[in-house]
Amino acid sequence: MKLPGQEDFEGSDAHENVCSEQLDGDLGPGSGLDGPSDIDNGKAQGCKDPLLFIQLNELLGWPQALEWRETGRWLLFEEKLDIGAGRWSAPHVPTLALPSLQKLRGLLAEGIVLLDCPARSLLELVEQVVSGESLSPELRGQLQALLLQRPQHHIQTTGIRPCRGSNAFRKASRDEDTLLKHQNPLRQKLPPGAEAAAVLAGELGFLEQPLAAFVRLQNPVVLEPLTEVVLPSRFFCLLLGPPTLGRSYHETGRAAAVLLSDPQFQWSVRRASNLHDLLAALDAFLQEVTALPPGRWDRTARIPPPKCLPSQHKRFPSKLQEVTSLSRQSAALAENKHHHGPHTPIPELQRTGRLFGGLVQDVRRKACWYPSDFLDALHPQCFSAVLYIYLATVTNAITFGGLLGDATEGAQGVLESFLGTAVAGATFCLMAGQPLTILSSTGPVLVFERLLFSFSRDYSLDYLPFRLWVGIWVATFCLALVATEASLLVRYFTRFTEEGFCALISLIFIYDAVGKMLNLIRAYPIQRPGSPAYSCFCQYPGTGGNASEFDSTMFKDTEDVLNVHPGLVNASFLPPSECIRQGGYPRGPSCHTVPDIAFFSLLLFFTSFLCAIALKHVKNSRLFPSVVRKVFSDFSSVLAILLGCGLDAFLGLATPKLLVPTEFKPTLPGRGWLVSPFGANPWWLSVAAALPALLLSILIFMDQQITAVILNRAEYRLQKGAGFHLDLFCVAVLMLFTSALGLPWYVSATVISLAHMDSLRRESKACVPGEDPNFLGIREQRLTGLVVFILTGVSIFLAPVLKFIPMPVLYGIFLYMGVAALSSMQFMKRVQLLLMPRKHQPDVLLLRHVPLIRVHLFTAIQLACLGLLWVIKSTPAAIVFPLMLLGLVAVRKALEWIFSPQELLWLDELMPEEEKTIPENRPEPEHLFSGNDSENSELMYQPKAPEINISVN
Amino acid sequence: MKLPGQEDFEGSDAHENVCSEQLDGDLGPGSGLDGPSDIDNGKAQGCKDPLLFIQLNELLGWPQALEWRETGRWLLFEEKLDIGAGRWSAPHVPTLALPSLQKLRGLLAEGIVLLDCPARSLLELVEQVVSGESLSPELRGQLQALLLQRPQHHIQTTGIRPCRGSNAFRKASRDEDTLLKHQNPLRQKLPPGAEAAAVLAGELGFLEQPLAAFVRLQNPVVLEPLTEVVLPSRFFCLLLGPPTLGRSYHETGRAAAVLLSDPQFQWSVRRASNLHDLLAALDAFLQEVTALPPGRWDRTARIPPPKCLPSQHKRFPSKLQEVTSLSRQSAALAENKHHHGPHTPIPELQRTGRLFGGLVQDVRRKACWYPSDFLDALHPQCFSAVLYIYLATVTNAITFGGLLGDATEGAQGVLESFLGTAVAGATFCLMAGQPLTILSSTGPVLVFERLLFSFSRDYSLDYLPFRLWVGIWVATFCLALVATEASLLVRYFTRFTEEGFCALISLIFIYDAVGKMLNLIRAYPIQRPGSPAYSCFCQYPGTGGNASEFDSTMFKDTEDVLNVHPGLVNASFLPPSECIRQGGYPRGPSCHTVPDIAFFSLLLFFTSFLCAIALKHVKNSRLFPSVVRKVFSDFSSVLAILLGCGLDAFLGLATPKLLVPTEFKPTLPGRGWLVSPFGANPWWLSVAAALPALLLSILIFMDQQITAVILNRAEYRLQKGAGFHLDLFCVAVLMLFTSALGLPWYVSATVISLAHMDSLRRESKACVPGEDPNFLGIREQRLTGLVVFILTGVSIFLAPVLKFIPMPVLYGIFLYMGVAALSSMQFMKRVQLLLMPRKHQPDVLLLRHVPLIRVHLFTAIQLACLGLLWVIKSTPAAIVFPLMLLGLVAVRKALEWIFSPQELLWLDELMPEEEKTIPENRPEPEHLFSGNDSENSELMYQPKAPEINISVN
Repeated sequence: MKLPGQEDFEGSDAHENVCSEQLDGDLGPGSGLDGPSDIDNGKAQGCKDPLLFIQLNELLGWPQALEWRETGRWLLFEEKLDIGAGRWSAPHVPTLALPSLQKLRGLLAEGIVLLDCPARSLLELVEQVVSGESLSPELRGQLQALLLQRPQHHIQTTGIRPCRGSNAFRKASRDEDTLLKHQNPLRQKLPPGAEAAAVLAGELGFLEQPLAAFVRLQNPVVLEPLTEVVLPSRFFCLLLGPPTLGRSYHETGRAAAVLLSDPQFQWSVRRASNLHDLLAALDAFLQEVTALPPGRWDRTARIPPPKCLPSQHKRFPSKLQEVTSLSRQSAALAENKHHHGPHTPIPELQRTGRLFGGLVQDVRRKACWYPSDFLDALHPQCFSAVLYIYLATVTNAITFGGLLGDATEGAQGVLESFLGTAVAGATFCLMAGQPLTILSSTGPVLVFERLLFSFSRDYSLDYLPFRLWVGIWVATFCLALVATEASLLVRYFTRFTEEGFCALISLIFIYDAVGKMLNLIRAYPIQRPGSPAYSCFCQYPGTGGNASEFDSTMFKDTEDVLNVHPGLVNASFLPPSECIRQGGYPRGPSCHTVPDIAFFSLLLFFTSFLCAIALKHVKNSRLFPSVVRKVFSDFSSVLAILLGCGLDAFLGLATPKLLVPTEFKPTLPGRGWLVSPFGANPWWLSVAAALPALLLSILIFMDQQITAVILNRAEYRLQKGAGFHLDLFCVAVLMLFTSALGLPWYVSATVISLAHMDSLRRESKACVPGEDPNFLGIREQRLTGLVVFILTGVSIFLAPVLKFIPMPVLYGIFLYMGVAALSSMQFMKRVQLLLMPRKHQPDVLLLRHVPLIRVHLFTAIQLACLGLLWVIKSTPAAIVFPLMLLGLVAVRKALEWIFSPQELLWLDELMPEEEKTIPENRPEPEHLFSGNDSENSELMYQPKAPEINISVN
Repeated sequence: MKLPGQEDFEGSDAHENVCSEQLDGDLGPGSGLDGPSDIDNGKAQGCKDPLLFIQLNELLGWPQALEWRETGRWLLFEEKLDIGAGRWSAPHVPTLALPSLQKLRGLLAEGIVLLDCPARSLLELVEQVVSGESLSPELRGQLQALLLQRPQHHIQTTGIRPCRGSNAFRKASRDEDTLLKHQNPLRQKLPPGAEAAAVLAGELGFLEQPLAAFVRLQNPVVLEPLTEVVLPSRFFCLLLGPPTLGRSYHETGRAAAVLLSDPQFQWSVRRASNLHDLLAALDAFLQEVTALPPGRWDRTARIPPPKCLPSQHKRFPSKLQEVTSLSRQSAALAENKHHHGPHTPIPELQRTGRLFGGLVQDVRRKACWYPSDFLDALHPQCFSAVLYIYLATVTNAITFGGLLGDATEGAQGVLESFLGTAVAGATFCLMAGQPLTILSSTGPVLVFERLLFSFSRDYSLDYLPFRLWVGIWVATFCLALVATEASLLVRYFTRFTEEGFCALISLIFIYDAVGKMLNLIRAYPIQRPGSPAYSCFCQYPGTGGNASEFDSTMFKDTEDVLNVHPGLVNASFLPPSECIRQGGYPRGPSCHTVPDIAFFSLLLFFTSFLCAIALKHVKNSRLFPSVVRKVFSDFSSVLAILLGCGLDAFLGLATPKLLVPTEFKPTLPGRGWLVSPFGANPWWLSVAAALPALLLSILIFMDQQITAVILNRAEYRLQKGAGFHLDLFCVAVLMLFTSALGLPWYVSATVISLAHMDSLRRESKACVPGEDPNFLGIREQRLTGLVVFILTGVSIFLAPVLKFIPMPVLYGIFLYMGVAALSSMQFMKRVQLLLMPRKHQPDVLLLRHVPLIRVHLFTAIQLACLGLLWVIKSTPAAIVFPLMLLGLVAVRKALEWIFSPQELLWLDELMPEEEKTIPENRPEPEHLFSGNDSENSELMYQPKAPEINISVN
């Protein structure tokens, strides 16, 4: 069922925002606790109640053939048996009718309540329950027999083969039934220690009075064959009565089951000492239910599970409250860390005041984790992570190598890209503060390198020696930044800065990809009808017109060609290459143009671009098993490149291919691996290189630290801490090394690093139907990265294979990277808001709290900054654009005059000084008017949803 | 907010299924009634209550600056004021806390209840209310002043300009406020006669006791300045009390407002005569609320309005029940009509038993509507319908004309297509039983025509005369079918048949489009490197090798060409055409190939295909105003063609273009307009033509009647009745006419006709926030169709423009038509189910009631039938495939042995005989087990959602 008007506004959905908080603070019994307890290592374990599996067995078939059948089950959500289809429904939020809850209350109040019943088997239990009822002996016997009768379970095995779907509900023999119960896939999903509860409800003709019993067993026992899953049962609830109109006992039974599945009721009833406690818990539940008016909501509609369950803090009694507040504290801490507030001391971002103090602290902090950085990698998950990240890294090395070769006209190339990636990456993984980081020669550095190259070409400089000096200076500046603990400035990088930076880079990617494609088309001109370009033949020397004379004729326009008349020649139809080989001269304008290449390249470009996008979206498709979807979406770029290469190889056209040296030597002919420090350049250039180096340092600092901030965000729950100073130190050292060898420059790459972290997620296994797996943390270690880069190094010998990759395919992937990075930003979603009619706007918290016009104003300012940056990048002053990036921080600071801190809190994050100006509990301005807004208060104090700002590669 | 796991399974969503029923039967007060009342012309008008606009004014700012502010409003759904953002939230289903309802009940029970209060102004009302309270005179005065204070309203004007968003809530002067109220866009959306209700709630420090009053005014009066919209108020509810914890009066006020917005409560409270009635209505409401457990649902989440409101039948007391049952009867009738049950006499499909009896009845029935068929068209909506359908028709005529020309090698062409469309369409619109139908030369007939043409070519027959005889015979057979009332057989065409037919046709479209594209690529071969195709020069006669000798050389393979050595020649670089003009010979293989065309055609093909798909999907986008989105999606094909033509014209390549004769004469050179009856064919062929004609008659009958069944479905609420016999008669007559002139053959086209109906929908204007407009019917008339075809006739003189359309663009549109038709079928959704893991399957009613394995079996059988049809179509026996289509009906009949009637009811529809075997009230098999399944009963008896089976144009 799709509720209309709902769409994703990824991560910033009003409802979703409860997520990160819930991860930290949900203390409902059951798996909700796994998160924090796993981290606090059993601190809360003592008061953790086991997960409860609740099953409703209904008595059907009165009066002909009485039988018990399981018609519903509950863990977090309800699953209903669709009898006609013979299948369990999808998990959904249970909906109840109030009368059924009231009837249940009445039945429980009148019925038998046995708390801490010592029964050890179903027989004992049934005897105790039945003996409590005032029934005639005959009835008692009948009832006892009925309660001991084996119920029909619908056990849905996994896989296509429907186990008991087609011939549903034939009576299974005892053995078969037990076998099935053990095969039950649900069993594997339940965490160890889970308990069961059975609710038996139905209408029985021979009863005159309703008959109710609620039993809590002192020690949970397996009540064979009552429950679908072989679990020790803790609760037993019997609700029988004379036939009524409209299956009311079914609804009452559901009400009992839903009650038992409620965290607070469960908590209370486990501790209840008498009927009064039980009824009080029920009343407390009633006070908290959400009521939907009958005229506006159809009760038969099944509401899919919300992405995040509501927080249960307020509902729990004081004892749990303590633990809750404890874990809330840590959540608040994490939250503050996210905002880098100065009033919350975080070790990584505290000023020591000593030279290299931050670096020393980083090293000291990381050193104690060093052994575990290798031991923690001993998990099969790391194998698949290596494969995935290896392919991504290689794809990246190929693409960037190709582009670098283009940008520097062959001064560097794919071989340098591979070698540099392998050496720099491996070194970084071994030394860095954040070993999950994957290095890459990123977009902005590439842009700068192109500017540098065109500058040195314009002034006839020797590029690589000049570049070496730039590298030396950059390393020096970066070391100075490390020494002065400049990394603490990352606290001033808010989302505004990150988004401005990322958007600019994405746009450069898109612009470059399209531009290169257009250049390619210009290089292979399209032949229009009537153009003389059709003519070409092979002329043998000897008789006829002078070949050299003809060749010197320039074909400036069509008329020229038509007027040239070679006269009597000895002609053949040999293709140009063959012609030259046989000693002839290819003659005519068509000999030098290759037809079909332009359009075919365009086709390859679009194919790889669209294919990568489509494959990425397979993840959200409903078709195919999740494994298949994951493979398609994870390897979308690789698959798109393979498809492009296949298409190209199939047609065998002479499309421009990736240039790969076949030998292991630098791409630039005639240079050794070590770049000579001066080459043909004057000596003073080594000093003058400090100027571009200053700009590049800013660029590298911003690129590196923005990525580091994103990677070390609180929502990833990293245990081993960040190392901003150490990371920058490593980048500086590698800068020196790569410049000396003429390899590309490397900085941390956000997207691949995030993908790396994602492939190393630790998640709770027991995944109850309708619940998403709980995120427990990341396998922080150095081994996966190291192996990835060693493999990349080995891949240098893949060169013979790589030369089959057509350039248009790489351009297509490049375009895809730019578009993907651009569209993942909250900024772009706000740009879309500009075009969106008010009533179609999604219900996000941002829009609930900030006037639309203010949101638009903020977006417009961001757009204006972006436009300005673009203009500067396109003028001859382009080389100063790193300075302009730094200007973003200033603009953001200036925004404090225009927007209130509350608005900035919603639109962006807070900068250090601002945070002080807002009181600790951050009251929203409207509180002055609306008092204690109970409807918003839940959401208001939640940290904003983790929003991944994807920078390019 | 997006509830996870929700996606569209268009039209067959479990929740949506209430729709069609709701349209017929919802008798909730307010606009829900507009539907049926409009049709039953006021039959129910007498007891229709006016729509109620409810506003919550809250007292804020205690103790400093007391002021009333509107913080919520209700029509069908709740809109909440997001104070921070200064905007009304999107309409959503209101959620309440039970305690607030209980508190409200307590307050009302203790407070003043004035029913039929005679007050005529706010002042009088306030005086009456205040005088009822036991307060000190001073307090009374304070209270009275407070109640008369002007409240702050947030009036959101339409358009980008936020009226009071930026400087929200400054005190407006009285004039300004009144002006705003009259500009209020909400006012225009309310139907005439709407009434207002004001709920005033808040905390007041000087009160010691809660103070509550509920007033129903005898005559509604405008209580200036209480409500946001200037409307006469009917109810007034005051809920004040001493300050409490957590804004509880806000929640109580909301509860009162939600109660008043409930149809049943409103009905009761309008008729209540004392406090007891009021409380009884509240209790009845409480009994019906849907309760969501607190642990599983976050109350702050806003639930978007469901597509269909729950039906209110069961909730209304007896008086309304009568009307309800009446309109239910008509709904049931419509439902039966949809199923064509033999036990429900429908005039159009009743056997008369006389020759041409059905035709006579059709003519008689339609004759009385004839004048109104022209008068009903006098509405501006018809103008836009004409423009839209004209463009669709012309696009269709171009595409089919182009394809027909291809298929018959120029025996017919675009000119015939235009002429035929104009004449046949106009005639049909004037004469037919269903004048909304748009005729078109459809896919299946085109396929048959191609078969007929290749047959006549294989046996060297004169095509057009042969075709004339086929046409004569088809007309004869069709007349026989009309005479024998064979159209009654449409009752046997279930969805199974429709889908089999449509799927086959769609596949043929896709296959043809791709096939034609491949042929085109073969015609313009791609030049690979090393191929000798580069060579071409212009040889002047005289000296050197013999040209004719050279030309006769066949280039079977590369080696041959390379070995040919023209020797000494007098060569020039003139392009081939110029060369011939100057008396030379173009020599070399490259002279006859045109480069770049193949790939450019491919690009055009994909561009037009993808563009049409993308533009069609703009409708579902959230961006742009709805008018823009509608234009893009309605004119997607036209825009895609224009884009393709523009691209082609821009590059100016010699792509193959649509062949259009420049003069008004038949495409086949040398024939007159009238086809000679025999031509070069032997006389007996005129008799033998009866055999293919028999097959074509079956095809035409099925195509025409399947379309007619879809167009005349009950959900379109046609008032003037169908005319199955008359329609077939018209088709037969036109058959004769078009065959005689050598024009294409015409049958009703589903998609364009549906688009035609859609553009003529009458919908209720007053559209309350959160509610979709009510569908009232179709403007049934003959004029729009007539004008469309007259315009099409005029467009014949567009020929000089049409010749710029490249064929690949048309092929792309063709592919799009096939894909669009295929993907709109329920059949394809079931095919997708085959690939969908169980847990991702949508929650559709079908899957709730039929075991998955049975659904898959049904789909597999359909797939097998389709495969068989395809195989037959591809063999030399292709010409008998119309017979095989008829075989689908037999297969469907045979399915009754495999599936139970209940399963078939869900998977398909019932055939006439089957319906008899199911008792009137259709108990589902599981009822035997589950008794009275209250949870399903609502949905179980709903007619299935209207599902449009789109056949290809």
